[in-house]
Amino acid sequence: MSTITPGSPEPVVTATSPIRASNAIPTPSAPPPDVLRCAYMELVVTDLKRSRDFYVDVLGLVVTEEDDQAVYLRTLEEFIHHNLVLRKGPVAAAAAFSYRVRSPQDLDNAVAFYTELGCRVERRKEGWTRGVGESVRVEDPLGFPYEFFYDVQHVDRLAWRYDLYTPGSLVRIDHFNQVTPDVPRAVAYMEDLGFRVTEDIQDEDGTVYAAWMRRKPTVHDTAMTGGAGPRMHHLAFATHEKHNILAICDKLGALRRSDAIERGPGRHGVSNAFYLYLRDPDGHRIEIYTQDYYTGDPDNPVVTWDVHDNQRRDWWGNPVVPSWYTDASLVLDLDGNPQPVVERTDTSELDVTIGADGFSYTRRDEEDMPTWKQGEYKLGHQL
Amino acid sequence: MSTITPGSPEPVVTATSPIRASNAIPTPSAPPPDVLRCAYMELVVTDLKRSRDFYVDVLGLVVTEEDDQAVYLRTLEEFIHHNLVLRKGPVAAAAAFSYRVRSPQDLDNAVAFYTELGCRVERRKEGWTRGVGESVRVEDPLGFPYEFFYDVQHVDRLAWRYDLYTPGSLVRIDHFNQVTPDVPRAVAYMEDLGFRVTEDIQDEDGTVYAAWMRRKPTVHDTAMTGGAGPRMHHLAFATHEKHNILAICDKLGALRRSDAIERGPGRHGVSNAFYLYLRDPDGHRIEIYTQDYYTGDPDNPVVTWDVHDNQRRDWWGNPVVPSWYTDASLVLDLDGNPQPVVERTDTSELDVTIGADGFSYTRRDEEDMPTWKQGEYKLGHQL
Amino acid sequence: MSTITPGSPEPVVTATSPIRASNAIPTPSAPPPDVLRCAYMELVVTDLKRSRDFYVDVLGLVVTEEDDQAVYLRTLEEFIHHNLVLRKGPVAAAAAFSYRVRSPQDLDNAVAFYTELGCRVERRKEGWTRGVGESVRVEDPLGFPYEFFYDVQHVDRLAWRYDLYTPGSLVRIDHFNQVTPDVPRAVAYMEDLGFRVTEDIQDEDGTVYAAWMRRKPTVHDTAMTGGAGPRMHHLAFATHEKHNILAICDKLGALRRSDAIERGPGRHGVSNAFYLYLRDPDGHRIEIYTQDYYTGDPDNPVVTWDVHDNQRRDWWGNPVVPSWYTDASLVLDLDGNPQPVVERTDTSELDVTIGADGFSYTRRDEEDMPTWKQGEYKLGHQL
Amino acid sequence: MSTITPGSPEPVVTATSPIRASNAIPTPSAPPPDVLRCAYMELVVTDLKRSRDFYVDVLGLVVTEEDDQAVYLRTLEEFIHHNLVLRKGPVAAAAAFSYRVRSPQDLDNAVAFYTELGCRVERRKEGWTRGVGESVRVEDPLGFPYEFFYDVQHVDRLAWRYDLYTPGSLVRIDHFNQVTPDVPRAVAYMEDLGFRVTEDIQDEDGTVYAAWMRRKPTVHDTAMTGGAGPRMHHLAFATHEKHNILAICDKLGALRRSDAIERGPGRHGVSNAFYLYLRDPDGHRIEIYTQDYYTGDPDNPVVTWDVHDNQRRDWWGNPVVPSWYTDASLVLDLDGNPQPVVERTDTSELDVTIGADGFSYTRRDEEDMPTWKQGEYKLGHQL
Repeated sequence: MSTITPGSPEPVVTATSPIRASNAIPTPSAPPPDVLRCAYMELVVTDLKRSRDFYVDVLGLVVTEEDDQAVYLRTLEEFIHHNLVLRKGPVAAAAAFSYRVRSPQDLDNAVAFYTELGCRVERRKEGWTRGVGESVRVEDPLGFPYEFFYDVQHVDRLAWRYDLYTPGSLVRIDHFNQVTPDVPRAVAYMEDLGFRVTEDIQDEDGTVYAAWMRRKPTVHDTAMTGGAGPRMHHLAFATHEKHNILAICDKLGALRRSDAIERGPGRHGVSNAFYLYLRDPDGHRIEIYTQDYYTGDPDNPVVTWDVHDNQRRDWWGNPVVPSWYTDASLVLDLDGNPQPVVERTDTSELDVTIGADGFSYTRRDEEDMPTWKQGEYKLGHQL
Repeated sequence: MSTITPGSPEPVVTATSPIRASNAIPTPSAPPPDVLRCAYMELVVTDLKRSRDFYVDVLGLVVTEEDDQAVYLRTLEEFIHHNLVLRKGPVAAAAAFSYRVRSPQDLDNAVAFYTELGCRVERRKEGWTRGVGESVRVEDPLGFPYEFFYDVQHVDRLAWRYDLYTPGSLVRIDHFNQVTPDVPRAVAYMEDLGFRVTEDIQDEDGTVYAAWMRRKPTVHDTAMTGGAGPRMHHLAFATHEKHNILAICDKLGALRRSDAIERGPGRHGVSNAFYLYLRDPDGHRIEIYTQDYYTGDPDNPVVTWDVHDNQRRDWWGNPVVPSWYTDASLVLDLDGNPQPVVERTDTSELDVTIGADGFSYTRRDEEDMPTWKQGEYKLGHQL
Repeated sequence: MSTITPGSPEPVVTATSPIRASNAIPTPSAPPPDVLRCAYMELVVTDLKRSRDFYVDVLGLVVTEEDDQAVYLRTLEEFIHHNLVLRKGPVAAAAAFSYRVRSPQDLDNAVAFYTELGCRVERRKEGWTRGVGESVRVEDPLGFPYEFFYDVQHVDRLAWRYDLYTPGSLVRIDHFNQVTPDVPRAVAYMEDLGFRVTEDIQDEDGTVYAAWMRRKPTVHDTAMTGGAGPRMHHLAFATHEKHNILAICDKLGALRRSDAIERGPGRHGVSNAFYLYLRDPDGHRIEIYTQDYYTGDPDNPVVTWDVHDNQRRDWWGNPVVPSWYTDASLVLDLDGNPQPVVERTDTSELDVTIGADGFSYTRRDEEDMPTWKQGEYKLGHQL
Repeated sequence: MSTITPGSPEPVVTATSPIRASNAIPTPSAPPPDVLRCAYMELVVTDLKRSRDFYVDVLGLVVTEEDDQAVYLRTLEEFIHHNLVLRKGPVAAAAAFSYRVRSPQDLDNAVAFYTELGCRVERRKEGWTRGVGESVRVEDPLGFPYEFFYDVQHVDRLAWRYDLYTPGSLVRIDHFNQVTPDVPRAVAYMEDLGFRVTEDIQDEDGTVYAAWMRRKPTVHDTAMTGGAGPRMHHLAFATHEKHNILAICDKLGALRRSDAIERGPGRHGVSNAFYLYLRDPDGHRIEIYTQDYYTGDPDNPVVTWDVHDNQRRDWWGNPVVPSWYTDASLVLDLDGNPQPVVERTDTSELDVTIGADGFSYTRRDEEDMPTWKQGEYKLGHQL
C-alpha cells in the first residue's frame, strides 16, 4: 500500500513515517546509542596528493593535521578535529561513516545494540583516526562500516575567521547518503537506531526508492537510496548561501576542471535544499548543500514524493544524469576489504523515470513534457 | 584562417574583431543611425491572456498599458514606455527588434542607410506601438524587422520601489539574439551599422558559429547565432543578482511550470554572465541574464572561443540541450507575414559538439570527458 | 572571577558555561519539561490593524487565522499553527514566551517544576491561543510569562511555495531575548530548565552583561540581557540569506518607513549571525537574523566576549544605538497586568561602552579609535 | 529657484539638469576631449607597504606591477594596466584623477580646451605612470589634477579567473568623488567637458549640496560634493553583488581592522546603489559600490533629492557620520604640492541635517523621527 495516489497533484504529507518493512530486522532489546549527528567520513583515496588538492586547494577544507598516509580535514564552523579523513589506500572506498554520540556511555550502548543484532563489533580505546578517542566500529546489518565516538579533540572553530573564507567556503558537514538494495528494511533498522524519517520517494504500488532520516533537526544525517549496495552514494557539506555553491562551479570552470561537476547546481524537491554534486579524483561523490528546514519536532510532517514527479529530485525539472543513479563508492569491512555488492530487486528509480520506458510528470494531469525536457529524459537509458 | 590554434588552451584575445566576411554586403556611404541600445521587442503571441500571465504574474514585468490586443511591459529600472510588447496574432513571431537612437535626426540616417542597402523602409510619424513616437522600420539585409526610434513617452522609473520587487525581479532589458545562416556576413553588416564585436565562437578552420556585438558598453545589444534564419533566438532581461535568477526557477517549480525552463541556470563562458533560458507559452525563448562586464573602450579586447571548448556556452561544462540550437521564433516582414527561413550551409554548432560525431573538450590536451559528462553530449544527436 | 583577562586579544573559549550565580534560585528536584524550541510569542498590540499591516504587508508573515481581536501568524517553513500572536489590548506588552515541549507528559513536568519553584502556575486544557491545545503558563522566577505546550494544530508548511515568497521572506522563528537585572541568576535558573549557555559577554571583574542559551542546536532559543526587567527585548525571525534582510530595509525605505529600522543591518560578533533590528508600531523590537552555527554537541565550546570589545555586538564595529540598550517591552502576569520592572544594580553595558565614560576597543593593545568611530561612541551618553 | 517644493513627498524628476550656475566659467570654444570613463586615480601614500597591505591583502586588488616607489593595481575585470596607483610620498594626497579618452586625437582637444580655460596644462609623450603612454595633465579650473590618456598597455582581463576571486572581489573602478566649494559652478564646467548630471541634492532655496555626473552610462564617473576644496572625497570600486561588500566588512572584523569602516554598508538613495565607505591607512576614503542603473539615454531623467530627505544618502535612514562630511584628501598641483583649500560659503549639508539645528525628515508630513533615529542625528554637531 502506498501513500501515493494517482489523483494527488502534490507530495503527500503524513504525521509519521509512511514506510513499512515486510522483512524488518528484529529490533534489539538494548537501547541504541544516542546519536547527535553525522560527524565525519573516512575515505580511502588512491592518490593522496591529488585528493588533497581537490579537497583543500579547490574546495577549501581546512587541514587540521596530515602526514604521508592521511589528511584530516574540517569545515570552517567545526570545533571537532575533523569532518573528513582522506586515507591513502589501494582501492577507493568509504572506510567509515562516523557518528558522534551524546556521552561516553553511549559506546556501551552501541556495543550492546550491534552485538544483539549479530554484527561484527570492534571497540578501540585509542580510536581509529587521529584526534578521535575511544570508538566503536561495526559492520552494520546492511553491510556499512558505522562508527560511534564521543571523545574528540577540540580545535579552533574558524567561523569568525572571515580572512580565511573563500567564495565557496564549506562551513558544516551535513549528511551521508548510502545505497542499499532494500530501502524499507534499511529504514526499519535506522529507526531502531533512533533515526526519524523526514521525506521519502515512493510509487503508487508502495515501492520505496529512497528515504531521508535525521538525528539532528535537519532533513537528514543520512539517507538510504535504493540500489546495489552497500555502497556510499555521497557525503555532503553545507555552505552559508546559494552563491557560495555557484562560486565552486565558477572556480572549477576557471581551473578547467568543470568535469568534476556531475549534477547541478539545482534546487532539490526533497529537502528543499540547493545542491551541487561533484566527483572527486577517485569518483567519490560530494554534495554541496544549503538551506533545508528545521525538522526537530517529534511530529515533524513526513513528505512523500511520487517517483514520477519530475520535480522530486530537481525542483526545476532538470533531469538527473544516469551516472548519479548508477555510480557509488565501495564500502570497506572492518578488515579493510570491500564489502560485496548485492543488486536491488525492486524496480529502480532510473528505469522508471529516465529512458524509453520511463515516465515522469511535472503536472500530473498532463501527458507530455515539452521537447526540450522530453529529450533528456528519454535518452538516459541508452548509456 | 582562424584565430583558434590547436595548441592554445584558452580563449584567444585579439585587439580587433577576428571575423572577416568573404561575401560582405557593401557598406553604405550614408552614415548609420547612432544606436544607443536595444530598447524593446514586439512579440506576436497567440493567446494574449496566457502570455500576459507568464510575463506579468510569473516573471513580474510591469504593465505600463494594455488593451485586448496588446500588453506593454517594462522592467523595474526602465524609464521609457516599454521593453516588450505582446501583441495578439495568428502566428507566434517576433515583429520588431527595436533600438533607441541618440536623436530624432538619426531617423533620417536610418532611412538613408537602409535605402542605400536596398531594403524596404517604412517611416511612421505616429510610430507602431503606443508610447513610442516617430519610428523607422526596415526589413534589414538579413531579413530581420529592425526598428529605430528616438521619441518615446517617459514613465516612472521604479528602481527605488522595493515594495514592488519580487524575488526574481527583472530590472533591465539586456539584449536580443538572432539566428542567421551566415554569421560573418551578418557581422560585417552590423559593424557597418556601428556595432562592435566583443566575443565570438569559431573553429580551427575559421568557421564562425556565433558573434556578440554591442552599442551600449556591455557584451552585447544583439548576437548573431549561426543557423536557419532569419529567426529570433531569444530576448534577454537582466536581474540584479544571481539569486534573483534562481528565485525564478524556484517559483516556476512552485507553480508546477518547471518545464518552462529550457536550459540553465548556469554561467556562460562567452560573456561571463549568469544565465537562464525560459520558453514562453508560444515557445519564444527568454533569457534571464546578469553580470557581464564593461566593454565601452574602443580597443576592448575581443574574446574568441573554440567551438570545441566545452565551457564556451556553459562555464561549468553542462551540455546545451539540443532544442536550444534548433528552436527559434519566426520573424515578420513589414506586412506582418513570416519571413521565409534559409538553412545554414556552414557546419552547425550542434553537429560539431553534441552527439555521436560531436567533439568537445574541457582540457584541450585530454581526450575523454568522464562518463557523466560524456553521456549527455553523445546522446544529443538522437533527438 | 572572570574568564576575561587583559592580555587576551580575542573572545575566550571555554568547555562549559563560565557563568556562576552567587544567589542562584535553588534547583527543583522535579525534572524540567523537555523543551524542543522557542515556538511563538504572544504580543499585545494597541492597534491591531496597524500591527497587522507591519507584520503581514511589510514583513510578509503568513496569516493562519484572524478575527477582530487577534491575528495568528507564521513563517514560511513552519508547520505549527503560529509563531506569533498579535492580540489587541490596552497596553503594548509581551503576554507569553511560548516553548514547544517534546510530549504531553512534559506539561506535568512543567507544573511540578514551577510549582516547586514557588511560581504561579496555570494549566488549561483548551490552551490560551487558537490552534494550540493543552498548555501550561507560569509566572517564572524572573517574572516572565512562560508557556509550555505540545498539542498544536498542523498547518501547511509553505517552504516549497516560492510563488508566495517575497524578497525578504521570514522562514523560521529563531529566538526570544529577555531583559533581566541579574544575568547569572537568570542563567542558573535557565540551566535548571535544561538550557545551555553558548556565548556570553563579561568584563574583567566577572560582571555578566548578557548570555545566550539554547535548546535546539542553534546559538539560542532565548538570551538574557542585563537591564531593568522583566522586560521583552526582542523576538527574532530567520531569513534564508543575508540579501533577504537587506531587502526588508530596501522595502521599508520604499514605504518611507525607514524609521522602523533601529539598528543594523550588521554582523553580530556574538552568534556570528547577520542581523537587523526593527521596531513595530508599538515599539516592540523584532530582529531579523540569519546564519549562526550548530551548537548541538554537549561539549559545544562557550564563547565569552569582553564587554569592551567593540566588535562583540557588531563585528564591523558599528556602534549600538542607545535605545537598543534602554528600550524594551513590558511583560504581563497571568492576569494580563504588566509586571513591575526592577532596575539592574550591576553596571550597564551602555554605561561601560558608550558615552563619555565608556571604553571600547577594536584592538586591545591600542587606545584610540579613529575619529569617525570615536564620535559615535562618545556621544551616546547624552541621550 | 529650486525644483524642490515643500509639498512634494518624493525626489523630483526632471528631463534635464536642474542646476544653474550664476557664476559659470565661460565655455571654451574648443571642443572637449571625448571622455570614455574614469580610469584610474594616483594616490600619494606615506607608507607604501602599509597601503599595499590594505589594497592588496585586505581588498584583493591585483598587482600589475610594482617597485619600491609605487604599486600599480587593477580590478578583476579590467584590461588596462591599472585603476589605482599608490605612490610613496611625504603627504597623503590625490595626485591625479585620470580619464580615458576615445582616441589619441582627444589629447589635442584636451590641450586646447584647458588652454582656453587658462589652466596650467602639461603634455607628456611618455606619460606619468607605468603602462600609460602619452598623457595630458591639467590643473583644472576647480584646482583638481585631471589627466587624460588614450594609450595604455593591455593586460589580462581576469574576469573568468574565479580561482583568484575572494569573497569581496573588486571587479571594476566605478567613480571619483570630489569636494569643491561651489557645486553649480563645478557642474557647469563639467557639462562643458561633456559630462551629464544624473542626480543631485538641493534644498528649497535652490542651494545645491552635491551633483552626480557621468560619461559612461552609470550614475557617475565623478560627483561634486559641496565643501572646502579642492579635495578628493573618495574613489569607488564595484563588486558584483551585495554579499561581496558584506564580506569585506566581515574580513575587516576578522582582521580586527573594523575601524577602517567609516560608514555603511547601506543602500544609497542617490544612485540606488549598495555602498560601503572605508578609510585607508592614510585616511583616503574608498567606496565599495554595486548596482546602480543605466543612464545612457540623452534624456535620462535627472533625480533631485531634498537635502532634508533623510533617505537621500542612506535609503534606510541611517545617519551619515559627521567625518564623512568633513574629512577629505588633499589634491596636488602639477608640481606635486598640495593645492590650497577654499572654504564653502553656501550652507553645508552637515549643518542643515545633523546636529541641534539640523532638520531631516523621512515622511515629509511628519515632524518627528523616533527616538532611536533622533538621537544620532541630533548629536552629530558636537563632534
